[in-house]
Amino acid sequence: MTQTRFALWGDLIWSQTPARLNILPGYCVVVEDGQVASVEARPPEDGTPVHDCRGKLIIPGMTDLHLHAPQYTYRGTGMDLELLDWLAQNAFPEEARYADPDYARRAYRIFVDDLKRSPTTRACVFATVHADASLELARQLEESGLICYVGKVNMDRDSPDDLREAGPEESERETRRFLTGMEGFQRIKPILTPRFVPSCSDGCMERLGALQREFGLPVQSHLSENQGEIALVAQLCPDTAFYGQAYDKWGLFGGGAPTIMAHCVYSGAEEQALMQERGVFIAHCPQSNTNIASGIAPVRRYLDRGLRLGLGTDVAGGAHLSLFRAVTDAIQVSKLYWRLVDQDCRPLTMPEAFWMATRGGGAFFGRVGAFEPGYAFDALVLDDSALPTPRPLEPAARLERLLYLADERQIAAKYVAGTQIDI
Amino acid sequence: MTQTRFALWGDLIWSQTPARLNILPGYCVVVEDGQVASVEARPPEDGTPVHDCRGKLIIPGMTDLHLHAPQYTYRGTGMDLELLDWLAQNAFPEEARYADPDYARRAYRIFVDDLKRSPTTRACVFATVHADASLELARQLEESGLICYVGKVNMDRDSPDDLREAGPEESERETRRFLTGMEGFQRIKPILTPRFVPSCSDGCMERLGALQREFGLPVQSHLSENQGEIALVAQLCPDTAFYGQAYDKWGLFGGGAPTIMAHCVYSGAEEQALMQERGVFIAHCPQSNTNIASGIAPVRRYLDRGLRLGLGTDVAGGAHLSLFRAVTDAIQVSKLYWRLVDQDCRPLTMPEAFWMATRGGGAFFGRVGAFEPGYAFDALVLDDSALPTPRPLEPAARLERLLYLADERQIAAKYVAGTQIDI
Repeated sequence: MTQTRFALWGDLIWSQTPARLNILPGYCVVVEDGQVASVEARPPEDGTPVHDCRGKLIIPGMTDLHLHAPQYTYRGTGMDLELLDWLAQNAFPEEARYADPDYARRAYRIFVDDLKRSPTTRACVFATVHADASLELARQLEESGLICYVGKVNMDRDSPDDLREAGPEESERETRRFLTGMEGFQRIKPILTPRFVPSCSDGCMERLGALQREFGLPVQSHLSENQGEIALVAQLCPDTAFYGQAYDKWGLFGGGAPTIMAHCVYSGAEEQALMQERGVFIAHCPQSNTNIASGIAPVRRYLDRGLRLGLGTDVAGGAHLSLFRAVTDAIQVSKLYWRLVDQDCRPLTMPEAFWMATRGGGAFFGRVGAFEPGYAFDALVLDDSALPTPRPLEPAARLERLLYLADERQIAAKYVAGTQIDI
Repeated sequence: MTQTRFALWGDLIWSQTPARLNILPGYCVVVEDGQVASVEARPPEDGTPVHDCRGKLIIPGMTDLHLHAPQYTYRGTGMDLELLDWLAQNAFPEEARYADPDYARRAYRIFVDDLKRSPTTRACVFATVHADASLELARQLEESGLICYVGKVNMDRDSPDDLREAGPEESERETRRFLTGMEGFQRIKPILTPRFVPSCSDGCMERLGALQREFGLPVQSHLSENQGEIALVAQLCPDTAFYGQAYDKWGLFGGGAPTIMAHCVYSGAEEQALMQERGVFIAHCPQSNTNIASGIAPVRRYLDRGLRLGLGTDVAGGAHLSLFRAVTDAIQVSKLYWRLVDQDCRPLTMPEAFWMATRGGGAFFGRVGAFEPGYAFDALVLDDSALPTPRPLEPAARLERLLYLADERQIAAKYVAGTQIDI
């Protein structure tokens, strides 16, 4: 259903700031040309079609800043392994299968169908090293109605033979082929995706930096996830003072290139300062950091410092595709960080983690994640009637409960940039 | 459906030891008079009815060693609060409503219906201080076909006026009234339930100890959940060297009284030794300990030491009723404990956490939690066909994936002591 102007009538909740929810029960959000036009206390009487969602919550759609589409179908397996073993035994052998277009088509179909039904309206997605499979993923996502960045992965060193590109030339050539194939897409855009520093030679990084400037592309990668990884990067890049510089020296760390760095579990003061200076988005992936035993990122510090920040499910380091789960995972690990690591680092509150999933991560896509005029209308209509209570709950408690308990069955409708998605 | 002898045919998995899964794809478990009679490589040819569950996993039912039924309908709310604030603002006001029999009936109906559909086949349940509401819960559980212990809670000090019993006499009288009401139940049995030491006067504890000996009752309570709580107990009971002694001195800490202590996040060496000596069961409640910011229990130590150990959802300190979730929560927090607190304390593996949910906790009920001759036939038949993969998975990976991802929709059938439950 595409209407140029319509309204949704229900219990509106969105983040005004990280600390503050706007809660407007029984209000209308009026949508025009895919954007929020206004929020009104009463349904418009000018003939605008009104969709009656009274009794349901209407919240902004959620942005997943970091996930690996090819790992989706094997989520929740091999979780007793730590990062490097998990990559070697689980992630890499699976990703190698995407050289087969038929396998990629079948596996990505499972992923895209589930992503459509999830709370995610926008996502920044790692594919694999294969240009053709990455284009297949982009085609399926384009049809889904979701808005995403998709990255063909670059990796030309320290990787299994059947996943490693032969060198910088091949990596650039395949990336250009991917970029050419991405022309003409409406909702899905390409993003440069060096896997992480250990997997990319200097030559590869140099060419990706040049591609970034040639096409003005955004960038996504991994940063400071694990102590072993950080030590390896320091050894591979002796001219850098910290991990982030190993991207920055190639122009792949924000500034001109809108950039997402996943994890940042162990980012020190200098790295944080450079992320702030360059406007780098941190994709906080609490469940993955737990499952692969990386640790807990000090997100409270990043939030209080005003760093750009959103949530990632990091499927399949994270086993769950749902950003509802990521919101509550973020709250939960922040409590353990506070209790076990640093009692000056207060736990995240529900409104703060909700902000990260909506407005925080949404900002990577522009004016996304709030019901304010000029914002893209990404929304979830949530029906909590299958979660009965013996007495009524206030909207904020209903939202909190849904974040902890809901799955796709509670999503009654989903809109992306004003278009209703077929879930 | 009640048959005296039948067989289930499918992919059997159960724990032989904490470290070792028995995996028998395409086997039959033969059930007679509610117990496992044998496990066979082929369906019996003696006329025994065979239920064909090929392609599905058949695992033991799960035991929830600790949860609060009256908190269920408000799970997932107020989770930004710490233990004492959460009790005061969330748990206690809700429990006070169970003085109203109609409220109790409606609220417990929601709980029992969901528990039936959950992976739980047996549970040890806290009700409230109200004898009548506790009997209502027991009646609804009895009809469900599940096997449970239900405890009317005792609390006569340091509690809100509308929940506090007037003193030891009232506490004993109401407990006797509850015990009388429980006569004649088949599947639901009473368990003595002093809320925790701070809520029970010495006089109350003394009378509960006497009731324990008079009726040979089992006991459940809370232990060493939170540092503030431990300090309070030390102050209230200056004659004790550690928290567990405050139960033990009244005969409420194992030995003759089969006992469950929930949490044990901060149990020291002496407390652990006494639990071992007395055969006390530890109910590990990883999500609750996270949500209420208590910390992480060193479960690896308890397991390696051979302490009796199972899992609790601790609804509503835990927001989730599913023991699948508790299994993966236990694994996840053990990884963070290992990474952040004690690198000598290896993370729990999936088989170990699965063991805790089945055989570990099941032992509180006797021979429960395994498919071995003489064990009660508690089982879940799991259908993972709605979680497709582009290539087949081995049974152990299917089990792991279900533990991370499944909800009640994947439970195709459920048996308790040989009787199929209407889910």
